[in-house]
Amino acid sequence: MTDPTLLVLDADPPPRLGRLTGRARIAHTDEAQLAARLPTADVLLVWDFTSRAVREAWPGEGPRPRWVHTASAGVDHLMCPELAASDTVVTNARGVFEQPIAEYVAALVLAMAKDLPRTWELQRRGEWRHRESQRVAGTRAVVVGTGPVGRAVARVLKALDVRTALVGRRPRTGIHGPEDLDRLLSRADWVVAAAPLTDDTRGMFDARRFGVLQPSARFVNVGRGALVDEEALAEALAKRWIAGAALDVFATEPLGPESPLWRLPGLIVSPHMSGDTVGWRDELGTQFVELYERWAAGRPLFNVVDKQRGYVPGH
Amino acid sequence: MTDPTLLVLDADPPPRLGRLTGRARIAHTDEAQLAARLPTADVLLVWDFTSRAVREAWPGEGPRPRWVHTASAGVDHLMCPELAASDTVVTNARGVFEQPIAEYVAALVLAMAKDLPRTWELQRRGEWRHRESQRVAGTRAVVVGTGPVGRAVARVLKALDVRTALVGRRPRTGIHGPEDLDRLLSRADWVVAAAPLTDDTRGMFDARRFGVLQPSARFVNVGRGALVDEEALAEALAKRWIAGAALDVFATEPLGPESPLWRLPGLIVSPHMSGDTVGWRDELGTQFVELYERWAAGRPLFNVVDKQRGYVPGH
Repeated sequence: MTDPTLLVLDADPPPRLGRLTGRARIAHTDEAQLAARLPTADVLLVWDFTSRAVREAWPGEGPRPRWVHTASAGVDHLMCPELAASDTVVTNARGVFEQPIAEYVAALVLAMAKDLPRTWELQRRGEWRHRESQRVAGTRAVVVGTGPVGRAVARVLKALDVRTALVGRRPRTGIHGPEDLDRLLSRADWVVAAAPLTDDTRGMFDARRFGVLQPSARFVNVGRGALVDEEALAEALAKRWIAGAALDVFATEPLGPESPLWRLPGLIVSPHMSGDTVGWRDELGTQFVELYERWAAGRPLFNVVDKQRGYVPGH
Repeated sequence: MTDPTLLVLDADPPPRLGRLTGRARIAHTDEAQLAARLPTADVLLVWDFTSRAVREAWPGEGPRPRWVHTASAGVDHLMCPELAASDTVVTNARGVFEQPIAEYVAALVLAMAKDLPRTWELQRRGEWRHRESQRVAGTRAVVVGTGPVGRAVARVLKALDVRTALVGRRPRTGIHGPEDLDRLLSRADWVVAAAPLTDDTRGMFDARRFGVLQPSARFVNVGRGALVDEEALAEALAKRWIAGAALDVFATEPLGPESPLWRLPGLIVSPHMSGDTVGWRDELGTQFVELYERWAAGRPLFNVVDKQRGYVPGH
């Protein structure tokens, strides 16, 4: 019996795959070769999770991988109708990014409350200028997205005594449904976008929703760039509809040097790094190896994505 | 019976003192007039808590205020041997600053863990550069100072799942004594100075102690500037004995534009603002009015400073 073929979409070999020696024939591919090689693969590991090549390259019919794993929480970059309709199983990296992203959101919330961006600017100019800052305890946050990331964000914000509401696709214990969103937004101090990108969520933070917010509100996106109408956010900041924002994800990544977002007053721009703490690549590699061992043994996989919904359902 | 004379050291009248109309003759003084006016006062309110004029102006003998209140947590700026030896009662603003300062420390810790200063620098240059950041949960902090500020800092850090040790003047339940300090420092990721400035604590963070720290450790001072040997800290940063630091307080405040601290790589400088959230002046005024009403009625005061130790004892 031949070992299954594991095709890895990435120039650099992921860590930990050495553990699969003798149990997988590992081949690497770049985006250009992906379409030609997909039919030969039993398993596809999308290690370069910034790539959108899978959507283009996925075979309409004929031989194809039986299992696709992406080293990311979101699957929007690889899902296409053909993959969704196929019997190929898709898994994601749920479990690796939640705590780091939650801490990152707390870092941004506290940095904005304590006016740290201005502190840095004044430090650069050697200028001592005392300001009053804001207390975080007792403020109100709305977290949109009730997957592992949204729930981890809510947990950390609550630990800081922020009154935090979670909003999901449907109401359930401790979670608000979409019908409550605008009311919650209208009195929020902090709005955190942590939803997967689906047809329901694309562009959900638009001019109307920014208009609902209080002038003192601040917006944070650690989900996917396309959750937000970036032009509407720019306008909301320029017109002082809201007090500030922080984006870690963008409609187009990397953000080009010509983007006006870099220099928008009141906006913090970071390069899609909220979940990436030291050791994260090792964790992703270890998680994939564990999944591969289950798959090779015919045991059930974890982190199986509902391909219609676009995320791992549960809880 | 004449109303007591309340002398206020500040150019601007503090908020809320209007409530004392008909119960106090309120007079304002600047630093220059303080010595001449002190003997006429029953109560001194040190509203300008950056002033060191009380130490100079305190009468050696003869009439003097029976009660001094300072709108600050620390009393180092006003204590002198004559005041300590007198029967004048000293109270402070314990209760106003703790939660804001604790949040500020959390903001600095998270900002350093998530590399936010570098993010701002890169944003200013319009440069997309992904980095790995650090997970805060599971790291180790040492908080020096077990007063309300130190304990609030420890509470917030623990809420972020940081393993936090408190170090005080003597060991007791949940608190380490000075004999544990160096051992704790040697494995700390975060060191927070939140102690009052006393003869015991002055200059306690010196070259030897920075040498004990791990190269990955970061140091935060929200106590008093003179807790730290600033030259030793500058050297520790320049020589990479430690990974970073944040100072909100300095030996001399305001920090002059010529200070090398503004431009020290790895150092975050902020202008003594950690405790000052919106509404803090109102809170300080309300607290003083409440103390005044007790004092005028002959009831016991709260926040009474042990003048030998230099802080409000207890817990």
